[in-house]
Amino acid sequence: MKIYKEKIELKSDAQIEFLDISDKVQKIVDNSEVREGQVLVYAPHTTMGVTINHNEPMLIQDFMRVLYKLIPVDDQYAHDLFELRRKQTADGRSNGHSHCKSLLLGVSETIPVEKGKIMVTDSQSIFAVEFDGARKRDIIVQVMGM
Amino acid sequence: MKIYKEKIELKSDAQIEFLDISDKVQKIVDNSEVREGQVLVYAPHTTMGVTINHNEPMLIQDFMRVLYKLIPVDDQYAHDLFELRRKQTADGRSNGHSHCKSLLLGVSETIPVEKGKIMVTDSQSIFAVEFDGARKRDIIVQVMGM
Amino acid sequence: MKIYKEKIELKSDAQIEFLDISDKVQKIVDNSEVREGQVLVYAPHTTMGVTINHNEPMLIQDFMRVLYKLIPVDDQYAHDLFELRRKQTADGRSNGHSHCKSLLLGVSETIPVEKGKIMVTDSQSIFAVEFDGARKRDIIVQVMGM
Repeated sequence: MKIYKEKIELKSDAQIEFLDISDKVQKIVDNSEVREGQVLVYAPHTTMGVTINHNEPMLIQDFMRVLYKLIPVDDQYAHDLFELRRKQTADGRSNGHSHCKSLLLGVSETIPVEKGKIMVTDSQSIFAVEFDGARKRDIIVQVMGM
Repeated sequence: MKIYKEKIELKSDAQIEFLDISDKVQKIVDNSEVREGQVLVYAPHTTMGVTINHNEPMLIQDFMRVLYKLIPVDDQYAHDLFELRRKQTADGRSNGHSHCKSLLLGVSETIPVEKGKIMVTDSQSIFAVEFDGARKRDIIVQVMGM
Repeated sequence: MKIYKEKIELKSDAQIEFLDISDKVQKIVDNSEVREGQVLVYAPHTTMGVTINHNEPMLIQDFMRVLYKLIPVDDQYAHDLFELRRKQTADGRSNGHSHCKSLLLGVSETIPVEKGKIMVTDSQSIFAVEFDGARKRDIIVQVMGM
């Protein structure tokens, strides 16, 4: 039984962005030499999400539109007042909505590994989802198996 | 330490459908002979979800109503235009909303196993959730443990 | 390879409540003596959720507001009629909305463990989320690793 862990370092370029990390996750599974098992993809952040879906640019526009509709940026978030008072963020970032989007999506996914390959079909991609960019981020990828 | 994997083959009968796969998951745990560990239930699809909740027919109507309200079918999805242009789908299926519903629900759940039994109470069922049926589907079930 | 499991017993004090269980999860990881691996946090309930985010009181107000907005208490839930007919619940609890909130959040999260510590940053907390309190609850915490 092996346990292997690596960090993916990312840089988001927009406030909200779907970053396809499928190839990077597969590379870490390769490095782990695990043939049968599973891989955990985990975002150690409170304004990111992890999800698996189709990497089709128009669809990603739909995802963003839906997330903005469900959690509007122009609502009043109590958290933003809190941040303002604490002056915690140098750039005055109002990210209450980003936390709420992260809440909806969740910060981890687990994918089975078979014969050394992550079990995703051609239409599935693993996404790290930025909700409060642009900034540097890291994602933890942990492989368990044989 | 054992790692054991099986596929559940399903056939959905409606566009949106909650398929209770609890018994099938338990059967695979039986086959694995794992006594202590966990089971990963994973949908290798972009228009399905996996969730755990109460299998009560009226409640499932509520789930559907809520999902349709949050992600309406009659919104305009950019993805549907894309599919139309590519003529990718023979049946002209407009499934932008199905992908968005999958995004909200997520495609995996992990359940602990104790003394060979999945740790679900009487009111919990494991559901594979179809968002773009009717069609054939498969679900990957992977058991890890001793 | 170790597999270790413990139950956290909780008591919620409100209908909806974010209970920070990070310290309790870490304590169980300590008890497991696992140094490298992962921990599964799982709610064996149909009206609870498990999530990871920032434990900031104003933000938690935002989470509640968003969840109530997406899944209003004063909508009609078919499940509540069902419960009423069955007189299943002694207190006539109308908890259709609680099940729907649980559906959105999901009932498990998996967190990597490194050098015996759960890999959460200072701004991340693990929450068991009550959607149908006040009542007693338990959460299953399972550690796998070396």
